[in-house]
Amino acid sequence: MLLALDVMGGDNAPAETCRGALMACDRFPDLEVALVGTGSRVAPLIAEASSSVAKRLHVVNAEEVITMDELPSVAIRNKRKSSLRIAMEMVRSGEAQGCISAGNTGAIVAGGVLVVGRIPGIDRPGLGVPLPAIDRLRMLIDVGATVRSKPLNLVQFALMGGLYMRHVLNVADPKVALLANGEEEIKGDDVIAQARDVLRKGPFTFIGYVEGKDIPVGPADVVVCDGFTGNILLKVMEGLGEAVYALLREEMGQRILPKVGMVFMLPMLKELWTRFDYEQYGGTPLLGVRGAVIKAHGRSKAPAIASALGVARDFVLKRGVELISREITQGGM
Amino acid sequence: MLLALDVMGGDNAPAETCRGALMACDRFPDLEVALVGTGSRVAPLIAEASSSVAKRLHVVNAEEVITMDELPSVAIRNKRKSSLRIAMEMVRSGEAQGCISAGNTGAIVAGGVLVVGRIPGIDRPGLGVPLPAIDRLRMLIDVGATVRSKPLNLVQFALMGGLYMRHVLNVADPKVALLANGEEEIKGDDVIAQARDVLRKGPFTFIGYVEGKDIPVGPADVVVCDGFTGNILLKVMEGLGEAVYALLREEMGQRILPKVGMVFMLPMLKELWTRFDYEQYGGTPLLGVRGAVIKAHGRSKAPAIASALGVARDFVLKRGVELISREITQGGM
Repeated sequence: MLLALDVMGGDNAPAETCRGALMACDRFPDLEVALVGTGSRVAPLIAEASSSVAKRLHVVNAEEVITMDELPSVAIRNKRKSSLRIAMEMVRSGEAQGCISAGNTGAIVAGGVLVVGRIPGIDRPGLGVPLPAIDRLRMLIDVGATVRSKPLNLVQFALMGGLYMRHVLNVADPKVALLANGEEEIKGDDVIAQARDVLRKGPFTFIGYVEGKDIPVGPADVVVCDGFTGNILLKVMEGLGEAVYALLREEMGQRILPKVGMVFMLPMLKELWTRFDYEQYGGTPLLGVRGAVIKAHGRSKAPAIASALGVARDFVLKRGVELISREITQGGM
Repeated sequence: MLLALDVMGGDNAPAETCRGALMACDRFPDLEVALVGTGSRVAPLIAEASSSVAKRLHVVNAEEVITMDELPSVAIRNKRKSSLRIAMEMVRSGEAQGCISAGNTGAIVAGGVLVVGRIPGIDRPGLGVPLPAIDRLRMLIDVGATVRSKPLNLVQFALMGGLYMRHVLNVADPKVALLANGEEEIKGDDVIAQARDVLRKGPFTFIGYVEGKDIPVGPADVVVCDGFTGNILLKVMEGLGEAVYALLREEMGQRILPKVGMVFMLPMLKELWTRFDYEQYGGTPLLGVRGAVIKAHGRSKAPAIASALGVARDFVLKRGVELISREITQGGM
């Protein structure tokens, strides 16, 4: 299986992205990776690969890079020689079965629609982030592909999230819910209420509305919201974690006793930390496009890139695109 | 100053609400509190008040209670003898200068509009929660009074939040921002973009869009969003805190070393905790109505109720209603 990796995307590109590709090829013997980026920079970064890995790495030169501050749809249209665009064209042509980028999220979404193309019947794609929550993995979808959503979009996010949970993450009976400002039927607005009426008919177990507090611990496996809300939520959660960590460190720096305490607590905290570590879940699928398009976190280091490649590989092996396509056709949406 | 307290609202009513009134009267010698609720239950709860406090407590009998699961607007319309409605009527008539309730949030908002009445020129009220963030207090407005907002609503939330920050919380130059899915101008939607164009003209320092990560630490003192988003955000933050706490406790219960560590860390953690303790900030003003209407957390115990009474008293002393009314008239909104 060939996956195209935009090695120029993300804060730690191309060193960590290339290293991530090496790790992934080491882990998955069936994997080949097209390293799309500035060839002269990529070559030395993969020089040390073992021969079994090296023969599965293919450098694809790209002369341009889409940066974080560019207007996504303009950049993906105009920068035809950018690493992201070339990686996506490899998916469109069928040369690669999926692509991975830690770059500009908006450009990945725009490229997913404009270059890779949507699955017929899908109105808008959704970014579904697997959230390492307290008790188990949950998916929050959409976290920013579609700013404001119509009822149809919410329904399709629910459908795609449910399929992903069941077939890729192996949750036998995923519970699907709509995020609202309360659990009662009178909550939400017209858009959400209309989506609810459709989702009640299946095909997944639909548990109605859930509230914000149900994201870290709650009954739903798939929490559906519009991209505006999802984006803000995701960033609040990230921001809170970092803020608390920074605060603890600052306070700790000035004291002795807490440091002593920390030594005793460290093994437990480390273990807990792994439950929330995005490097282990390092891939957010853009669902609804004709290929495995995986967004990795902008700050991804090699393990997170390797994990994102693993997510793409899984999606291809489980035939994610076909699953969505079939459900959309059969469900008549 | 007389404030009306809905002693029947909240999870710990009426025992903790009555105890909160006693605490507040003890703290503020100028305060009188009307205890609105089932008289026979209230009387024994205030029997032990000192004479200086007792003479400032007035029991107002109310035969009905609005529960948490009632349809807010229906309940406030039909339950004319409910403690919340009577407390609000005391504000409308001018008998009391403000009212406080830890009960049904929707009913408080509905009563704010239908019973207390809006300040002329205000389209919709906003619930502005003072968030004890990492570095300082921030206000998030609206957290649920107005599910979906027009540009005018967002502008008025910004205005009211700014005034509250400046005059009640004494932040000389409050920075106001709109919450969006990114900082760039192209983010947000039409509603937010239109609000931005108005807010640029003042009267507060407007810093544009902020993202979710800027809520716990960031440049804004007042973060403005629609009630749907704000409600979900607030509940996610609450939920995360509780989930992490539960998780730590569970892990701790099974181990020895972390417990030892905790003993060393406890003083620091306790000090940090006070920064996030809603009991100290225990009041969310419903801004835009003709009186100090303060929502206390549903789980409020006596200290949080006392704090909410303090918030209402502050709002009255700083002439919050007049400040908003004047700004709306002069600003021509």
